[in-house]
Amino acid sequence: MQPREPNTIFVGKKPTMNYVLAVLTQINNGSNSVTVKARGRAISRAVDVAQVLTKRFATDVKVQGISINTEQVKSTMTGGMSNVSSIEIKLGK
Amino acid sequence: MQPREPNTIFVGKKPTMNYVLAVLTQINNGSNSVTVKARGRAISRAVDVAQVLTKRFATDVKVQGISINTEQVKSTMTGGMSNVSSIEIKLGK
Repeated sequence: MQPREPNTIFVGKKPTMNYVLAVLTQINNGSNSVTVKARGRAISRAVDVAQVLTKRFATDVKVQGISINTEQVKSTMTGGMSNVSSIEIKLGK
Repeated sequence: MQPREPNTIFVGKKPTMNYVLAVLTQINNGSNSVTVKARGRAISRAVDVAQVLTKRFATDVKVQGISINTEQVKSTMTGGMSNVSSIEIKLGK
């Protein structure tokens, strides 16, 4: 779908804990900050990931910034373009 | 559910445009800023509301701040407490 960016976790349809562990792994491997991204309905899950992580598993990690945006996505059904909201949550120590 | 706060729109399960119009109405009635709040799965819709409003209907309105949090909610089924993520998006001119 998109190029892999360093220190970025793209949240999709898997269970929340999968992404929490992915972020924890990056932090334990020495990253000072990790960005959690999501689009569309997965936005709620990205917020869950950030909250579960900072409240329960890594209380020294804080939300450093949140931004929202609109991305253009090509529909696989009709071939037309449609807008989808996205979120980026920057987490760091 | 909760006390009505001035200049706050609580996003739930209605169509996105309902909330976009609610925010527009508040702004046209003289509010300089409106806060859009949502919990759980409605978080994605709250982001949609902010994006549709600022990109399409009121381009002079900007996202001024976003915060995420965890709220305790009492389950109507079991009576137990559970955690739910929430978002607050502050929109203003």
